[in-house]
Amino acid sequence: MREGLENQKETGRAEAFSDGVFAIAITLLILEVKVPTPADASATGGLFEVLRRQWPMYVAYLASFATILVMWVNHHKMFTHICRVDDPFLFLNGLLLLFVSFVPFPTALVSEHLQFPSARSAALIYAGTYEVLAIAFNLLWGYAATHHRLLGSHVNAGLVQALTRQYRTGPALYLIAVGLAFFSAEASFGYCLLLAVYWACVGSLTRFFGDANAGIS
Amino acid sequence: MREGLENQKETGRAEAFSDGVFAIAITLLILEVKVPTPADASATGGLFEVLRRQWPMYVAYLASFATILVMWVNHHKMFTHICRVDDPFLFLNGLLLLFVSFVPFPTALVSEHLQFPSARSAALIYAGTYEVLAIAFNLLWGYAATHHRLLGSHVNAGLVQALTRQYRTGPALYLIAVGLAFFSAEASFGYCLLLAVYWACVGSLTRFFGDANAGIS
Amino acid sequence: MREGLENQKETGRAEAFSDGVFAIAITLLILEVKVPTPADASATGGLFEVLRRQWPMYVAYLASFATILVMWVNHHKMFTHICRVDDPFLFLNGLLLLFVSFVPFPTALVSEHLQFPSARSAALIYAGTYEVLAIAFNLLWGYAATHHRLLGSHVNAGLVQALTRQYRTGPALYLIAVGLAFFSAEASFGYCLLLAVYWACVGSLTRFFGDANAGIS
Amino acid sequence: MREGLENQKETGRAEAFSDGVFAIAITLLILEVKVPTPADASATGGLFEVLRRQWPMYVAYLASFATILVMWVNHHKMFTHICRVDDPFLFLNGLLLLFVSFVPFPTALVSEHLQFPSARSAALIYAGTYEVLAIAFNLLWGYAATHHRLLGSHVNAGLVQALTRQYRTGPALYLIAVGLAFFSAEASFGYCLLLAVYWACVGSLTRFFGDANAGIS
Repeated sequence: MREGLENQKETGRAEAFSDGVFAIAITLLILEVKVPTPADASATGGLFEVLRRQWPMYVAYLASFATILVMWVNHHKMFTHICRVDDPFLFLNGLLLLFVSFVPFPTALVSEHLQFPSARSAALIYAGTYEVLAIAFNLLWGYAATHHRLLGSHVNAGLVQALTRQYRTGPALYLIAVGLAFFSAEASFGYCLLLAVYWACVGSLTRFFGDANAGIS
Repeated sequence: MREGLENQKETGRAEAFSDGVFAIAITLLILEVKVPTPADASATGGLFEVLRRQWPMYVAYLASFATILVMWVNHHKMFTHICRVDDPFLFLNGLLLLFVSFVPFPTALVSEHLQFPSARSAALIYAGTYEVLAIAFNLLWGYAATHHRLLGSHVNAGLVQALTRQYRTGPALYLIAVGLAFFSAEASFGYCLLLAVYWACVGSLTRFFGDANAGIS
Repeated sequence: MREGLENQKETGRAEAFSDGVFAIAITLLILEVKVPTPADASATGGLFEVLRRQWPMYVAYLASFATILVMWVNHHKMFTHICRVDDPFLFLNGLLLLFVSFVPFPTALVSEHLQFPSARSAALIYAGTYEVLAIAFNLLWGYAATHHRLLGSHVNAGLVQALTRQYRTGPALYLIAVGLAFFSAEASFGYCLLLAVYWACVGSLTRFFGDANAGIS
Repeated sequence: MREGLENQKETGRAEAFSDGVFAIAITLLILEVKVPTPADASATGGLFEVLRRQWPMYVAYLASFATILVMWVNHHKMFTHICRVDDPFLFLNGLLLLFVSFVPFPTALVSEHLQFPSARSAALIYAGTYEVLAIAFNLLWGYAATHHRLLGSHVNAGLVQALTRQYRTGPALYLIAVGLAFFSAEASFGYCLLLAVYWACVGSLTRFFGDANAGIS
């Protein structure tokens, strides 16, 4: 009993720390949206025109915000299945957070380079970051779920399989984004934005499935 | 019982993540208040004179801080009525947080442009952001409250109606701010500052009303 | 009973939000410590020489960090005496947080201007910010403690009086800092640093006193 | 019983505040990774070439992220042994957080200077920061553990000794990093990166040892 409480407290602190990193990374994204000066505005034909020209900044803000949010919702859900943490888990979680907190950098890169010759390089780094992020997420889940290592007793084998299948689509789908970047920066970037929306939907469906499953068991 | 605890934990984590985003967005606002250099100070007739001239920065800091704070107090109150979360709610909450964390951008815009020809465009974007934020807040509440979907059993129909009415005034009042921006940037901006104060008062009153209501039922 | 839990949850969320703002404000301070470029280093006689010349930045970082920390410890202690929150309390707390999150601005001002003719103006704004912060802290405590409005039943009248006396020294002591700024920026600034240390000690002593008191009652 | 709950709440808030500072400091590191402009990219032979040349920024990001993460994991573990906090502990914890939130500054220094004549000075400051951080960690643990001052009754003397020994290796190992900086910036910097990995492993092993120990007692 005491150990149960202890475990819950430790798991809770790992969640709180992760939430902090997710929340800060998602909020720092806005710092990459540059504020044009009054001089820029009068030189370019008004504030709206200057703002219109920097449209990649808003799309990149939106795409990265949505992706981090989806990642957070999934991380949040994963933790409802985990009943204790150990050191390797904390460090794999740290690896995931390393890439989550890295996101503002490729976001700024793609924002600034999408309308220039360096666009495809920027899009490749952007898609690559999410590819690595999705792999880190799978490593974390894989470690926790193998031999039911850190999972609660309420998590049945069917749910583990369903989640493993769902999470595995991530790296596969972002690999397409990486491939697209070699042909078109806009296509790769737009696809990443679509993926965030897609994952949101898949997440909702799997949840229904998971709840139904839980009802049966 | 177990499910009750589970729900409380999930709701708690959604609250904690939201609090994180609110707290970071509100604290990042200060980064938009520019620090004049010693050279600026000696060229303009002293530090106080330079600081006086950038008054829109302080007013924008104050207005945005107050608005995010009011939004947080209302979000905080809404969650006292909610007993569980689901995926669509988490993503609607994410939509709200998208605009909350966007606030530093229009705040910086209005700070920098209020004394220039681009003032009205900046004020329009500032007011528009709050309009969209108020709409997102209503969508979140609407989803949670419709058919009592995510509300606790202690929330009676009278309270739901009172809150729905209160929240609906938000988009209506910010629409006036949007309209004012076409005529005067200062009027629209000042009105937004007043609104934050007004909402604070309405919040207090509704709470008394809500508590009284709860006492009756 | 239910209400007790409800109150505890609401108080907890107010604490968590405040902690977030305190933690972010204290961590953002480092962004005001400027990083000299390699060009600066080679032009001025080495990196250490450049870093040595910007000493006001480190002292300002230290002074503001210590002051926000003391403020947080006191806020943390105040909340151990509070058993519920209401709207006016949340908004007074918001007022306190407004000035807490403002601290990076006067910190940057005093960092940049301490070695220039504008030093006294910067020191005045720095000391003035803490004066206002200390007043806001007293308003918050005054609201909570008057007629035992929001205090727990375990808080006796002697402890309330002791805390009220302790908190009141804040505005009085920072008033001296404000006064000193008219004569010497360094004196006012150094005094603010000393105050943070002094408050730390007073806090420790009062706590012993308070605990002893609680033991008697 | 009541006091137990009270203590747990206070300890919890100190943890939450610390987690906030750790999470923010670790996430702010990315702001030090500079985003090259399209002009930089076209002038230097493509985006990848510009990014390749600023490799110290990524290594510094990684090293500092890993070190703060290890520090957080250790802080997290230390708190599982602590059952109450007092004022001197909160201020020693504040001292630790002062250096944790300072980390982005030496990280930026070493990022910018590693390929310039000022490299060794920057590496010295980088290693010195971690030396001081490790000492602050030992002070915090020393205060809590001396005479079992703040430790829970479940912590036995063997575990205290094992942890004290483990924590003491920190300052000794970082002293080597400080020494190395006089000869080679790259060696000192690379060694700091390795240390973070090493500590991660030592942490895992000690934990096994600690758990085994706990099983015996």
